[in-house]
Amino acid sequence: MAPLRVGVVGVGMMGTDHADRLVHRISGADLVAVSDPDTDLAAELAARFPGVRAVEDPIALIADEHVDAVLIASPGFAHEEQVLACVENGKYTLCEKPLTMDAASALRVVEAERKGGRPLVQVGFMRRFDPEYAAMKRLLDSGELGRTLLVHNIHRNKVVPDSFRSEMIVQDSLVHEVDVCRWLFDDEIDMVTILVPRSTSEAADGVRDPQVAIFQMAGGGLATTEVFVNSRIGYEVRCEAVAERGNITIGLGQGPHLRRDNHYGGHIPDDFRDRFGRAYDLEVQAWVDASRRGAVVGPTSWDGYAATAVSAAGVAALATGRPIRVNLADRAEVLGGAAG
Amino acid sequence: MAPLRVGVVGVGMMGTDHADRLVHRISGADLVAVSDPDTDLAAELAARFPGVRAVEDPIALIADEHVDAVLIASPGFAHEEQVLACVENGKYTLCEKPLTMDAASALRVVEAERKGGRPLVQVGFMRRFDPEYAAMKRLLDSGELGRTLLVHNIHRNKVVPDSFRSEMIVQDSLVHEVDVCRWLFDDEIDMVTILVPRSTSEAADGVRDPQVAIFQMAGGGLATTEVFVNSRIGYEVRCEAVAERGNITIGLGQGPHLRRDNHYGGHIPDDFRDRFGRAYDLEVQAWVDASRRGAVVGPTSWDGYAATAVSAAGVAALATGRPIRVNLADRAEVLGGAAG
Amino acid sequence: MAPLRVGVVGVGMMGTDHADRLVHRISGADLVAVSDPDTDLAAELAARFPGVRAVEDPIALIADEHVDAVLIASPGFAHEEQVLACVENGKYTLCEKPLTMDAASALRVVEAERKGGRPLVQVGFMRRFDPEYAAMKRLLDSGELGRTLLVHNIHRNKVVPDSFRSEMIVQDSLVHEVDVCRWLFDDEIDMVTILVPRSTSEAADGVRDPQVAIFQMAGGGLATTEVFVNSRIGYEVRCEAVAERGNITIGLGQGPHLRRDNHYGGHIPDDFRDRFGRAYDLEVQAWVDASRRGAVVGPTSWDGYAATAVSAAGVAALATGRPIRVNLADRAEVLGGAAG
Amino acid sequence: MAPLRVGVVGVGMMGTDHADRLVHRISGADLVAVSDPDTDLAAELAARFPGVRAVEDPIALIADEHVDAVLIASPGFAHEEQVLACVENGKYTLCEKPLTMDAASALRVVEAERKGGRPLVQVGFMRRFDPEYAAMKRLLDSGELGRTLLVHNIHRNKVVPDSFRSEMIVQDSLVHEVDVCRWLFDDEIDMVTILVPRSTSEAADGVRDPQVAIFQMAGGGLATTEVFVNSRIGYEVRCEAVAERGNITIGLGQGPHLRRDNHYGGHIPDDFRDRFGRAYDLEVQAWVDASRRGAVVGPTSWDGYAATAVSAAGVAALATGRPIRVNLADRAEVLGGAAG
Repeated sequence: MAPLRVGVVGVGMMGTDHADRLVHRISGADLVAVSDPDTDLAAELAARFPGVRAVEDPIALIADEHVDAVLIASPGFAHEEQVLACVENGKYTLCEKPLTMDAASALRVVEAERKGGRPLVQVGFMRRFDPEYAAMKRLLDSGELGRTLLVHNIHRNKVVPDSFRSEMIVQDSLVHEVDVCRWLFDDEIDMVTILVPRSTSEAADGVRDPQVAIFQMAGGGLATTEVFVNSRIGYEVRCEAVAERGNITIGLGQGPHLRRDNHYGGHIPDDFRDRFGRAYDLEVQAWVDASRRGAVVGPTSWDGYAATAVSAAGVAALATGRPIRVNLADRAEVLGGAAG
Repeated sequence: MAPLRVGVVGVGMMGTDHADRLVHRISGADLVAVSDPDTDLAAELAARFPGVRAVEDPIALIADEHVDAVLIASPGFAHEEQVLACVENGKYTLCEKPLTMDAASALRVVEAERKGGRPLVQVGFMRRFDPEYAAMKRLLDSGELGRTLLVHNIHRNKVVPDSFRSEMIVQDSLVHEVDVCRWLFDDEIDMVTILVPRSTSEAADGVRDPQVAIFQMAGGGLATTEVFVNSRIGYEVRCEAVAERGNITIGLGQGPHLRRDNHYGGHIPDDFRDRFGRAYDLEVQAWVDASRRGAVVGPTSWDGYAATAVSAAGVAALATGRPIRVNLADRAEVLGGAAG
Repeated sequence: MAPLRVGVVGVGMMGTDHADRLVHRISGADLVAVSDPDTDLAAELAARFPGVRAVEDPIALIADEHVDAVLIASPGFAHEEQVLACVENGKYTLCEKPLTMDAASALRVVEAERKGGRPLVQVGFMRRFDPEYAAMKRLLDSGELGRTLLVHNIHRNKVVPDSFRSEMIVQDSLVHEVDVCRWLFDDEIDMVTILVPRSTSEAADGVRDPQVAIFQMAGGGLATTEVFVNSRIGYEVRCEAVAERGNITIGLGQGPHLRRDNHYGGHIPDDFRDRFGRAYDLEVQAWVDASRRGAVVGPTSWDGYAATAVSAAGVAALATGRPIRVNLADRAEVLGGAAG
Repeated sequence: MAPLRVGVVGVGMMGTDHADRLVHRISGADLVAVSDPDTDLAAELAARFPGVRAVEDPIALIADEHVDAVLIASPGFAHEEQVLACVENGKYTLCEKPLTMDAASALRVVEAERKGGRPLVQVGFMRRFDPEYAAMKRLLDSGELGRTLLVHNIHRNKVVPDSFRSEMIVQDSLVHEVDVCRWLFDDEIDMVTILVPRSTSEAADGVRDPQVAIFQMAGGGLATTEVFVNSRIGYEVRCEAVAERGNITIGLGQGPHLRRDNHYGGHIPDDFRDRFGRAYDLEVQAWVDASRRGAVVGPTSWDGYAATAVSAAGVAALATGRPIRVNLADRAEVLGGAAG
């Protein structure tokens, strides 16, 4: 199958990160074009990757017949026009949140897509792809714990710029928990309350930070969310779902933590592919990257030799129950003085 | 830069896993050829991936001028001939452990590579690429904790086949800790002792399992390793390094755990790229994969619309301090009865 | 100093527990009298402990000149009369929560005590004495983390009887968090909201469980509390306080967990008195109890002998670097066949 | 039953700690006498506690007919004579470790006790009374995990005086693990090896620290122990027992941690008596202590009043689903300006 030819619209911090991702960590996709109002920035990024064009007009990029799919990382106010153009041109779209700036325009996107007759748009709520959130969702959906009653979220940033105002805490930060709660409960949010305690003195003047949001779900579920964007702690995201017969917490760093029947705990993997799968990916990627630039990284043949020699000594030690000395060749002599 | 053209020699469980990895998760590489004594197996694998040839003779694959690099996942006894062929043909090589079956043959590989004048061989000790081990190594090497004095390893498998004998525990399992200890101490192992307590009744008759290995490093370090391949627990790998002014433990699942100065703890990331980097990768990969097959997965435009509507209600709630109802359009009407 | 002569009023589950505590685990106090409407129960308890009288009338017990202090564990509706009698008679009082059944009567107790001219009454909010809560309070009060902004509480019971109604969740369970929040913020609660999601099907008909309480403190702090008394999980109490420059969580079982400055973690004690203080208490108590009944428990002289013999072998092993065999005397011979 | 009359021999750091414990935290015992070569120290301690005599000659204390039981906390070299005197006088004895200075003298104590015809001596291996070790032992003895195969111990001190020499690491520190291993395996240690890596530069000149001890049990079990008395980390004691079908770790601070069948985790208590039992003890002890000196600590009647008022508001909030204001009486007016 031919690779998916992807264009990226908006190459600020997020768009550049996605461009790097498409080039270096995603298989089956070719980054072919980028577009940004800052044409120098776009040109510079295009120059870093062979075969990538900088296109001045984002709508032209979207319409380009050599572009199969578009990743939109432009500012939110530009989304409506760009996503509608994608839908019109039949392009698969990954649009960073928010979909658009208000509900009416977002609804226009939904309707345009529907009229087009086939789904094209994915919105960038990436937490659904986080392995911990995904495992939590699977466990809740299994029904094993009964219905989900409550969700408690914690969402903390270390610090934000002074330009990050009270409303942006709702629109840019809390919006992730909006999607998480809709997704975990598989239900719409019916009622929203935002409570503001005294604000931290670490926030800019007039900014109400932290905030506590209460979501009442249409089906009777309830969610509390602390958002604290000048927490001075670091980036900290946790989610605890409380069901009728147990609760699950993620974000502690150890995979979903389950509490039920007087027991807390988690899963121990069956084999090395689970525990070290990512290490294998990183190993092979490092090998591919090094080979392309004519180098060798990582464990060398000397390391392989030394390990084999120690293993042989180990087998002898096992047979005798005694300490066995490992007799290695002289490294400097073998390698001619070069480090292995 | 042109992709690295990779051949895989040996397509049993490990080689197939690597082939999948090269095709689906590694960028910058093209899998072009596979070889296995079981020619049906090789043909079947090749058929799964367009552009991949099955080559009967592994040495022919290695010599093929359309192959830039070779990943060797054949049984250990075949390694010497194959790696030497790689060196002779100037091919970059990633050889699964063990490098060869004994120290003398491994040394021949080291010497052949040296005579070739440039490094070509990487050995598959993938733990060096595990983010936790790598972070531990960086911290030890920083010198902040003083010299490393002791390393304690735990290496447990849930269960192994009855054919996995006492010596294989040393050669196939313990060999990972051999490399870990050499790497962490940056030193050679001078003396090996293998202690065997009474064996578990869960192991096959005559198999000495668990085993405790003692490594005395040339420079005075010491390492203890429990290897227990029929532990019935699961796959469990931990490593604790004890230095002069603190210790680091990995394998608890939360990143390196540091103990020093009456304090234990770990790191909280600065931003979302650290915490959710993998989620972004998985999100974009899912989008690419879905787009290539003409589908949309993940959060839809309806999800984007609903989130935007809730955000607007949230901003109103923030302004008033009161509960605000979210008024969504009728989903069935907008979507024509289709699920979003 | 003479021991404090204590009477216990109400010997249901809680009062019996306190009576046992006074007799077996508290020093400086003599339990001298108990009273309960169920006179058989009181008589039975009195009979278990030498020197303890059963007194039919609780007010007579309170007035008794041989009683210095009264622990009130009767049902809440009896508290007002009993505590007022304690105040009138100048008796030190530990009154289980609630102080009385409504605010007006509680205020009468406060006023009576004030008129008496000296403090006499302690209310049974025992969480303030929990080492974790106490450490959290000390850290918040130190000012090191800035002002406290938010508190999040989790309060779960495994299951309660069907007679435990929705209001009791507020009055009997949530009341602990009422005190915790007042104490941690050092402030009064200004506004209370109770939110009820759909109820668990594990609760009795009509019982609203779980509940989420919101406390707005007079000084601007905010607290959220989940109370879930039929959680099926077990007894689970956690508290997370969020201050301007860090947060503290207790109830994870490892002492206060502090997050600040991109770091999470906790304290490692300085010496064995911190880690094993309770073990020493339990050891000496076990010795005292065994000695009083003419028995020896715990490590015997044989255990002391064997440890000394192993230590001697250890010192020899240290000197030689070799395995040293421990030669113990024949146990059966030395002990005459009796177990050590 | 009359209290046990206890004498303490040796009132250095350990003996003073035990005297405090007997007076303040242990029920059923009266401290009646203390003895120490430093007679001023003994007199001073006796003066702190009414009814306690300082006795110059420890043997006289032991022989005193008003002493029922003796706690020996003198230096190890004095133990043999003192414990033998206890045995001769039929006194219950709790002897701090080591029982005596060498195996021959320890055996004389065992034999003397045996000749006396009844057990009298308990040795101060207090870890057996630590709730975590005790729970671990119970679980191993239950047989649920099969036979115990391996034990791994970590025993770290933050720092010791320069006078603490290499041999003392074996005799004074490792001796705890000697007892732990004998007790957990219910078996004698057959062979001891002490391995010494390069020593930390934080230890005094010539002191071999850390050390790794290997114990081979008579029945085939095996134990590894790291002892590191100048670890700079803090006081850290962990123990991991590996059985045929699972392993248990203690010392992580959360009660025994069990790993088996692809699962790790621990226990959540059934009710508050488990979680807050110690808080109740501390609460009642604080109340007793305060009452004896004529004071009130802890939650006051005002706190009880405020909690009751908030509960009433909470019940109203539950009924209405709305925020309810709490109207407290004016505190300064009610209390006459005094803090509550």
